[in-house]
Amino acid sequence: MSAMIIVMRPDAEPGDAEAVVERLRAIDCEAHLSEGRFRTVIGAIGDRERIQQIPWEAMPGVEKAVPVLKPFKFVSRDFQEEDTVIDVRGVPLGRPDRFVAIAGPCAVESRDQLFRTAEAVKKAGASILRGDAFKPRTSPYSFQGLGEEGLQLLAEAREEFDMPFVAEVLDPRDVELVESYADVLRVGTRNMANFTLLQEVGRQSKPVQLKRGFTATIEEWLNAAEYIYKEGNHEIVLVERGIRTFETASRNTLDITAVPLVRGLSHLPIVVDPSHAGGKRELVVPLALAGVAAGADAIMVDVHPTPDTALVDGAQALLPSDFAELMAAVAEVAAAVGRSV
Amino acid sequence: MSAMIIVMRPDAEPGDAEAVVERLRAIDCEAHLSEGRFRTVIGAIGDRERIQQIPWEAMPGVEKAVPVLKPFKFVSRDFQEEDTVIDVRGVPLGRPDRFVAIAGPCAVESRDQLFRTAEAVKKAGASILRGDAFKPRTSPYSFQGLGEEGLQLLAEAREEFDMPFVAEVLDPRDVELVESYADVLRVGTRNMANFTLLQEVGRQSKPVQLKRGFTATIEEWLNAAEYIYKEGNHEIVLVERGIRTFETASRNTLDITAVPLVRGLSHLPIVVDPSHAGGKRELVVPLALAGVAAGADAIMVDVHPTPDTALVDGAQALLPSDFAELMAAVAEVAAAVGRSV
Amino acid sequence: MSAMIIVMRPDAEPGDAEAVVERLRAIDCEAHLSEGRFRTVIGAIGDRERIQQIPWEAMPGVEKAVPVLKPFKFVSRDFQEEDTVIDVRGVPLGRPDRFVAIAGPCAVESRDQLFRTAEAVKKAGASILRGDAFKPRTSPYSFQGLGEEGLQLLAEAREEFDMPFVAEVLDPRDVELVESYADVLRVGTRNMANFTLLQEVGRQSKPVQLKRGFTATIEEWLNAAEYIYKEGNHEIVLVERGIRTFETASRNTLDITAVPLVRGLSHLPIVVDPSHAGGKRELVVPLALAGVAAGADAIMVDVHPTPDTALVDGAQALLPSDFAELMAAVAEVAAAVGRSV
Amino acid sequence: MSAMIIVMRPDAEPGDAEAVVERLRAIDCEAHLSEGRFRTVIGAIGDRERIQQIPWEAMPGVEKAVPVLKPFKFVSRDFQEEDTVIDVRGVPLGRPDRFVAIAGPCAVESRDQLFRTAEAVKKAGASILRGDAFKPRTSPYSFQGLGEEGLQLLAEAREEFDMPFVAEVLDPRDVELVESYADVLRVGTRNMANFTLLQEVGRQSKPVQLKRGFTATIEEWLNAAEYIYKEGNHEIVLVERGIRTFETASRNTLDITAVPLVRGLSHLPIVVDPSHAGGKRELVVPLALAGVAAGADAIMVDVHPTPDTALVDGAQALLPSDFAELMAAVAEVAAAVGRSV
Repeated sequence: MSAMIIVMRPDAEPGDAEAVVERLRAIDCEAHLSEGRFRTVIGAIGDRERIQQIPWEAMPGVEKAVPVLKPFKFVSRDFQEEDTVIDVRGVPLGRPDRFVAIAGPCAVESRDQLFRTAEAVKKAGASILRGDAFKPRTSPYSFQGLGEEGLQLLAEAREEFDMPFVAEVLDPRDVELVESYADVLRVGTRNMANFTLLQEVGRQSKPVQLKRGFTATIEEWLNAAEYIYKEGNHEIVLVERGIRTFETASRNTLDITAVPLVRGLSHLPIVVDPSHAGGKRELVVPLALAGVAAGADAIMVDVHPTPDTALVDGAQALLPSDFAELMAAVAEVAAAVGRSV
Repeated sequence: MSAMIIVMRPDAEPGDAEAVVERLRAIDCEAHLSEGRFRTVIGAIGDRERIQQIPWEAMPGVEKAVPVLKPFKFVSRDFQEEDTVIDVRGVPLGRPDRFVAIAGPCAVESRDQLFRTAEAVKKAGASILRGDAFKPRTSPYSFQGLGEEGLQLLAEAREEFDMPFVAEVLDPRDVELVESYADVLRVGTRNMANFTLLQEVGRQSKPVQLKRGFTATIEEWLNAAEYIYKEGNHEIVLVERGIRTFETASRNTLDITAVPLVRGLSHLPIVVDPSHAGGKRELVVPLALAGVAAGADAIMVDVHPTPDTALVDGAQALLPSDFAELMAAVAEVAAAVGRSV
Repeated sequence: MSAMIIVMRPDAEPGDAEAVVERLRAIDCEAHLSEGRFRTVIGAIGDRERIQQIPWEAMPGVEKAVPVLKPFKFVSRDFQEEDTVIDVRGVPLGRPDRFVAIAGPCAVESRDQLFRTAEAVKKAGASILRGDAFKPRTSPYSFQGLGEEGLQLLAEAREEFDMPFVAEVLDPRDVELVESYADVLRVGTRNMANFTLLQEVGRQSKPVQLKRGFTATIEEWLNAAEYIYKEGNHEIVLVERGIRTFETASRNTLDITAVPLVRGLSHLPIVVDPSHAGGKRELVVPLALAGVAAGADAIMVDVHPTPDTALVDGAQALLPSDFAELMAAVAEVAAAVGRSV
Repeated sequence: MSAMIIVMRPDAEPGDAEAVVERLRAIDCEAHLSEGRFRTVIGAIGDRERIQQIPWEAMPGVEKAVPVLKPFKFVSRDFQEEDTVIDVRGVPLGRPDRFVAIAGPCAVESRDQLFRTAEAVKKAGASILRGDAFKPRTSPYSFQGLGEEGLQLLAEAREEFDMPFVAEVLDPRDVELVESYADVLRVGTRNMANFTLLQEVGRQSKPVQLKRGFTATIEEWLNAAEYIYKEGNHEIVLVERGIRTFETASRNTLDITAVPLVRGLSHLPIVVDPSHAGGKRELVVPLALAGVAAGADAIMVDVHPTPDTALVDGAQALLPSDFAELMAAVAEVAAAVGRSV
């Protein structure tokens, strides 16, 4: 399987790109047309020999044809040079001059817990709500989430506080259910290589947050994104949430280097999750600020009104008041790197 | 959630154990009755306070009541002292005096490829066939398996060569399909923490091979087995297949220490997969022999008649003739540690 | 071996602390007197029983006596609450309102290379020069450094550009030689657990930069610092330079979480080395900014006038012009977290 | 730096090899002459262009000239095809038909402790004694070894029980002292990349045991061996003792795959240390047997008469009686792979 990017000239005629697409289909290749502000680019995926035997640069309106050498194709920066910006009910994820905060409880536990948290994080400057109804837990004896009831509460909170929300989906059989409520679907760290789930969310029309497997290389992570993109869903948000290393002083090791690496390799937005990476409340602020400074497009933070009684991951949840302080500091560092919250 | 093991005296009356079980049900706890050769043991899982408030040792026929402190309960050696032995169509997996070889192609590619391999591995001494119809691949552009057609070929090979077979299942929606053909279901390394898949195979009646996630701790692995056991399927086979480390000279690092550690912590059989661990043909023999010497119950080995043209993992597949040599060496080392092949 | 901190009251008499110290010596314990602005603190290390049998809080002027439970004692934040600030020829390392840049070539190669680099980094805002004369190399066939000639060049550069310099020492037999030239000695990542070298630099009077072993836990790192402190050298600077993980897209994985963790555990200053962590030029700026935002006291950056011809680690060296841009960005992010460069 | 192996024909004249060596010296290259049973091989190390410009295969008696592409040269299997066998006072380390047991206390604590252990391990079949007088300890407050007194006791035990012994050296300044007593010097895991220490032991005439750094790749380990070999000491024994991974159930993860990998890459003998790898008594036997089965030349095992009172690593020490049982099992597995103890 091979990929080629065919870049059209700024002054190409309207039919030129179409002719390229038809030519690709004639040789049984996939053609992905992307019309940018200044020029049109066509991504071609198919049999190497078939693609290469055609003299693309001799076709009318074609400026150049460049092979994509990475194992991932569509999500590669070679394929699409400009950043993907995803509109989540009016919140732009991936805009280089904007910084977005996603916040809320790790798991939805009750109406009261969710609403108190949502109100607080909205007030402090978060623009997307997080909260899960299905939780993947290491032990079968741990709280597994409220299920559909949790989704209903999230949908109510969305109306009440005017915030879109993101929620995890664990099972391909639940994708339609979660999508019927949530604004963004999340594939969690343990499911990053659950390829049938990736394909299923790839067939939906809502954006997908794809967490890095805590043991996945960046290349594997981008290949996982490719599974989603290839099925037709191009709105993918990558979330770095820490990797597993020998160090046990923090829950995981936030791979801050992943931020610039992903920026170079892919056009997709990238979010840092300091809560799950560090696993301890006192690490959230420095890790969040490091994420902003390193170039992330957003942070995603666990907040809980009473962390000590949280059913999931209470040790890492910020109090609403801590979150407000964090947002003040985030705004300063974001400004220093040219972004407004 | 808490667990208690209630051990009956050898001379307990038949109704004594029953009385314990009824008492447990009366306080809303799960009771798991295990009748061994010499005595009966009851596993109790439920609310800690409720379990502990009853003076179990004062009940007739009870010898002692011991709490299980591990996060995994049913799969723990504390819960069941004797080894679990699983009968796979007459092949005993887990018997301390027997050693089992599972072999076959990584992926089923064609009738010819499968049958040539099955014939050879049977002749060399393998007693269970492996071969996958659904393959989880890092890249969406790699061969994904033949699907149901592959399962049909495996079922034909079973009849032809009188070998039960094991095959991977990736999607909870495919569990029934795979179970309708295979003798043992496999949950692969990438799905070890796919909890909805674990629950689904836990509801089936065929044994399940559970591969260790290449990034999972032994405790997480046993917790994953607990998900299966808890749903009612007690025939679980653990497969050590290498973990991800900083070393890149081999595909993964076979964690040979996992063999004695799992033996100490759990009563479930353990298999070593030297093919996927090493990722290179020349490593398969020494790693397989190390597995035998360290106390594994079985090995699972990739064999392919023409590895150079294999669609998946050809670099690690043994030729049939290599496999025959391996089996001769395995028999010698197995004999040295008191097992016959 | 046990440790106790004895905190004196603000209104204690001058002789009170002295009496505590004498009492400690009388029971064969080490006493470490630290006179702060507001109160005096005494660190006691010795046999647990002997220390604990004395009713310290009943002695005149003593406010409280607190045991140190960590395996490292003197370098622990329990032992000394206020930050250690180290004066490197007028440059304060560890002051919470200042941020320091250390920069220069990885290895000294020639007078011209060193002087061009030193001039450029000084102009851009660096206040300490780095440059090594002894290089630990994986292969015995790689360039091993200029030896004493390199130290002489560094000393000349110090005079020319009025910058103190830090240089690595590899061998306990070279410690005196390196100390006779350098302002700060460095123990490199491969020698973090070279305990005889640690003891030797612990007996010197110049500050020591202690790089974290790329495979060392934070606790092991602080234990290594304890080896130095215990010998009498209290001016220790910790350098986080990336740890070894399974990810191969960057040379190492910068453990940004180590910055807040070390801040919590120890009073010693902490530096981030984005050059050796990332191993690639394009990663230096985002990693450096992440270090500033996470709360580091300084960065240490490789700069080379012609990276393509560098004898060591050219791929990660910034050009002088890149370094000037980095410093502009560092100043902005440092200001956002309350520090001036 | 480049390397070339020049293989002489079996029927070459005596002066032919000499002529090659002279030619190499004339172009400032190192020549390493190795006279095997059937043919002579010359290793050439030096400037690539100079080596390559000479038409070696046209010289009289030369069969072929093969470049060594690995970063390590002399220790590479390309350089020397036949196994290196090291004679340790009559004990052959590296002979394919022999298996050697090295055993003794981790640290020498007293005459009584050492002699009781030495007597027991000798009786059980060990042929080399281990015991350290200098211990590298994570904390400066832990027991650091008896120093020269420990070496004296080891030398007495050698006479008493007729066993050569191996002892660790930590500091280049102690190399001569340790060599004056010990039969084999050991460089420990924390010093594997202490290049000045490697060079110093490389200048001695006693064999060197080189433990793999618990965080070192196999390539780095062989490069470390190259440092020793290059200085002139060719009697190097490699010891695999476990690597650091995310798994915390064992102290380290024994990299059993390293055994066949090293066998393929190098001609040096390889030893497995199951005691330091597993860190727990109950893991020593299965790991030792795995090492034998995977093809190691020897095992090195900690034994202590009273592990509960051991000053170092008591949790992993076998009792003398356990060791005798281990040796019986080792003999069986060794026989299964064609070796006698």
